[in-house]
Amino acid sequence: MSEKLTSKDQVNALIDKYDYFLFDCDGVLWLGDHLLPSVPETLSLLKDKNKQVVFVTNNSTKSRNDYLKKFEKLGINSVTKQEIFGSSYASAIYIDKILKLPKDKKVWVLGEKGIEQELKELGYTTIGGTDPDLASNGTPFDLNDPKFSNLDDEVGCVLAGLLFDVNYLKLSLTLQYLLKNNKQIPFIATNIDSTFPTNGKLLIGAGSIIESVSYASGRQPDAICGKPNQSMMNSIKADYPKLGENPGRGLMIGDRLNTDMKFGRDGGLDTLLVLTGIETEANVKQLNAEEAPTYYIDKLGDFYEFNQ
Amino acid sequence: MSEKLTSKDQVNALIDKYDYFLFDCDGVLWLGDHLLPSVPETLSLLKDKNKQVVFVTNNSTKSRNDYLKKFEKLGINSVTKQEIFGSSYASAIYIDKILKLPKDKKVWVLGEKGIEQELKELGYTTIGGTDPDLASNGTPFDLNDPKFSNLDDEVGCVLAGLLFDVNYLKLSLTLQYLLKNNKQIPFIATNIDSTFPTNGKLLIGAGSIIESVSYASGRQPDAICGKPNQSMMNSIKADYPKLGENPGRGLMIGDRLNTDMKFGRDGGLDTLLVLTGIETEANVKQLNAEEAPTYYIDKLGDFYEFNQ
Repeated sequence: MSEKLTSKDQVNALIDKYDYFLFDCDGVLWLGDHLLPSVPETLSLLKDKNKQVVFVTNNSTKSRNDYLKKFEKLGINSVTKQEIFGSSYASAIYIDKILKLPKDKKVWVLGEKGIEQELKELGYTTIGGTDPDLASNGTPFDLNDPKFSNLDDEVGCVLAGLLFDVNYLKLSLTLQYLLKNNKQIPFIATNIDSTFPTNGKLLIGAGSIIESVSYASGRQPDAICGKPNQSMMNSIKADYPKLGENPGRGLMIGDRLNTDMKFGRDGGLDTLLVLTGIETEANVKQLNAEEAPTYYIDKLGDFYEFNQ
Repeated sequence: MSEKLTSKDQVNALIDKYDYFLFDCDGVLWLGDHLLPSVPETLSLLKDKNKQVVFVTNNSTKSRNDYLKKFEKLGINSVTKQEIFGSSYASAIYIDKILKLPKDKKVWVLGEKGIEQELKELGYTTIGGTDPDLASNGTPFDLNDPKFSNLDDEVGCVLAGLLFDVNYLKLSLTLQYLLKNNKQIPFIATNIDSTFPTNGKLLIGAGSIIESVSYASGRQPDAICGKPNQSMMNSIKADYPKLGENPGRGLMIGDRLNTDMKFGRDGGLDTLLVLTGIETEANVKQLNAEEAPTYYIDKLGDFYEFNQ
């Protein structure tokens, strides 16, 4: 059974108990472009108590720099780049540190600018992605497009995530690289969220774009760099070694059971579910002990509001 | 073990043995826009012997009228609309005769003009599809697009197939209809070929587009109207009752083991594999009895050429 946080004493005991507060962003701090109540005040409260905050997001369309701008635009000015872990950053780190892809190899990107920027910061050249030559511009797809006969032999990795300008040419070119060299080019996914919640609707998520090229190529991604996959947690623990040594000092806060809560639990952290996203209190009450978050709360801002 | 056809006597004995000759088109009659050798002559030979020919194709981007034009353009003038079974036609028939969708209900189409045309011929109104308001035109996707809040309550079926102008808006709108009414709107697929062979490359097939919305919605299609699914065979048998009564009088000719040959075998027909498509002789020789076609031949045109 999860404990519901409804009082000042409960939230303050919880703040005392943990050193690391990991946050999902959308559904916890904001909904789309709308800041949730008392969020900046709650983050200030934690920072005043010398707590380490870390923002963990599966949104691969934005780089960490884009996220910094988003925080500032919403009036949260205290966040630093080092506190942000996005799936595009985690993917770039994976390609660099785990795959150890040589810097003279290129990365074929099925995704948005956020991915390209993080790879560029690490010294990689990307192709595909937001290349205007591949953009949808109203011209019908050409079955004889010479791009299919001019694959780049320097491509050493395929990285796929969410993209809004998805089109047949980009999907089919991605397929060529996934099939090339007898399917030997590594295939990395930023995350596999099937949907993307926006304005109360579910739109097509990164996982559903990736599933298309997976099905066509008969390949599953070799690595997935978003929640709930632990490669992302391992990157965070590498940056915060004390959390790695003692994950019980960390609390993962999020709005989704199958990504955020699983991500924290699998990493050995306690978990706090907020009800400002897609889960309901009725759902939480039905969960068995294995699935239940450690705590739940109506909204993150209650940390601050209960103290007023 | 499959029998290889290499002589005049073999092909003439085979022609005598069957009354119905079912043909896959791409890879058998033509490759893209390139007619294969001696194909018109072979079709004339069969027609002169009063054989019934039937053309069975999974390509959902073309209607039967489009196919007639393609046959004529390639110099095959003897074909009639009644001899053509495309997956867009089979899907429209399925919606009309099996689903019995009332004509005042609309069909949401994730696909090309061929699908729209076949549905229109049966008296249905389509939305989605090639609507210019949904086309990729270089404008970035708008997360606040009002189309997401204006779903059409008259939509009574979703039909998905291959489309070249695939984009995020069309995929996400399809997802809305698949989720609508607690996932109760029927979800029909023209076919689930994962790839689409063109100019020696494999491009994204209908199945890979459909997989994207399947994954996002957590739904598999309720019916698949292309080879090797037998709903297509049943439509053909309904039109040719004698084939239905005695499928052993029919021969399915194609270039793919997992679609064409399986389609014929599952329908109780004998099968002939041509090597002008994606399968090789070495592959055929390795097949066990269950998978092996009844016969194989280098190319369809050998029917005619062996008789010269």
